[in-house]
Amino acid sequence: MAPRPPSQGLSTPSTWHCQHILGGHRSWVRAVAVSADGQIIASGSGDRTVKLWSLATGELLHTLSGHTSWVRAIAFAPGSDTLVSGSWDGTVRVWQETDGADGLDGPYLA
Amino acid sequence: MAPRPPSQGLSTPSTWHCQHILGGHRSWVRAVAVSADGQIIASGSGDRTVKLWSLATGELLHTLSGHTSWVRAIAFAPGSDTLVSGSWDGTVRVWQETDGADGLDGPYLA
Amino acid sequence: MAPRPPSQGLSTPSTWHCQHILGGHRSWVRAVAVSADGQIIASGSGDRTVKLWSLATGELLHTLSGHTSWVRAIAFAPGSDTLVSGSWDGTVRVWQETDGADGLDGPYLA
Amino acid sequence: MAPRPPSQGLSTPSTWHCQHILGGHRSWVRAVAVSADGQIIASGSGDRTVKLWSLATGELLHTLSGHTSWVRAIAFAPGSDTLVSGSWDGTVRVWQETDGADGLDGPYLA
Repeated sequence: MAPRPPSQGLSTPSTWHCQHILGGHRSWVRAVAVSADGQIIASGSGDRTVKLWSLATGELLHTLSGHTSWVRAIAFAPGSDTLVSGSWDGTVRVWQETDGADGLDGPYLA
Repeated sequence: MAPRPPSQGLSTPSTWHCQHILGGHRSWVRAVAVSADGQIIASGSGDRTVKLWSLATGELLHTLSGHTSWVRAIAFAPGSDTLVSGSWDGTVRVWQETDGADGLDGPYLA
Repeated sequence: MAPRPPSQGLSTPSTWHCQHILGGHRSWVRAVAVSADGQIIASGSGDRTVKLWSLATGELLHTLSGHTSWVRAIAFAPGSDTLVSGSWDGTVRVWQETDGADGLDGPYLA
Repeated sequence: MAPRPPSQGLSTPSTWHCQHILGGHRSWVRAVAVSADGQIIASGSGDRTVKLWSLATGELLHTLSGHTSWVRAIAFAPGSDTLVSGSWDGTVRVWQETDGADGLDGPYLA
C-alpha cells in the first residue's frame, strides 16, 4: 500500500460552496465587512443603505437607513457592536446595537 | 407555559440605531477606519482631508490637511497612534499622534 | 574594524521578490484578501468570479461562480473557512469550505 | 481650584501631525496597508507598482514592479513578510521578503 503523500496546506481535497445568497439591496454592493465575533455581515450599497445579515443563517437582520447617497465604505469597530459607514453624501454614520429591552426604534428594523 | 426557543445567534430581538452623524467633510467619504483601541474613527474624503472623530461622542477631533487631492485609502497601523493615507495626489502620508505637552502644531487641529 | 551600526528596523539589507503570479481571471482584480491562517488568497474580479489560491504554492484552488456581475468587495470571516463577497449585481454571497468527505459539488471546483 | 473634569477618551488635549510624506509614485495611490508588525507601509498605485516604506523613517524600501496595469488592491498576509496585490491587469501577485543572504534580485530594489 503506497504511503499517503504529506499534506500540503490546502491542496488536500476540500471544496467551497455558496452557503447563502443575500438578496435585498436594490443596487450594487461595493463594501462588505464581517464583525469580529463572526456573526454579522454588513454590506454597503448604492441603494443608500447598510444591511446587516446573520452569517450563520443568511437572514436579513436590519436595514440601516439614513445616508442620502451611496454607501462606499464600512468598518466594524473592535467589539462587533458598532459599525461605521462612509457615504457619497459626505457624512460618516456610527451605528450601534441596542438590546431589545432598550427600545425598538422601528425605522432601522429590516 | 411554552418553553422559550433556544437563542440562535443574533436572531434574538436586538436592533441597531444611528448613534452619531459625523458631518463636516465637504465632499464624499470613500474610506473609513477604526483604530485598534476602538476610540477613533478616521475618514478620507474628496475634500482632500482626513478627519478623526471620537467614536464614543461623535466629536470631530482633528482635520488632517496636506494632501492636494482626494484621499482614497486610509489604514491605522497596529497600536492606534499612527494613520496612513493614500491620495490621488500620488503621495502617502503618515500621521502620528502627539500628546499635548509635545506641542500643538495648529494647522492639524480641527 | 568598524563596529556595525545598530539595526534600524527594516533598513537592514532585505529584499522582496515576486513569489507567484496568479493568472486566470479574465478581467481586473479590485479586491484581495488573505485568510486568517495565512493559507488562502481570495481575489474578486470583473469576470464575476472569486478565485481562491494557495498562498504557499500559488495554485488555483477554486473558482467561485454565481455572481452575475463584477465582484467588488470580499472579506474573510474570522476563522478562515467563510468568505463573503459583494457584487455589482446587488447581492452578497457567503461561501463556505466543506471538507472532501461532505461532498464535492463540482461547479465550485476550479 | 476647580476639579479637573473626567477624561473622556480622546477629548484630552492631543494632536496629530504629518510625520512623513512618502513621495515617489508617479500616479494615484488608491490602496494602502500596514504590516502586522507595524514596520512596513505598502502602497498600490496607478503607476503599476507597489512601494514599500519604513513606517518609522519614511524611507522607500522597495519598489515592486511587474504588474502591467494599475494596482488597485493590496493586503498583507498574517506575519508581515508576504504581500498580495491585485491589478487591473487581471493578475494577483504574491511578494515575499527574502533576507539579504538569500540573494538580492535587483529589479525589486527601490
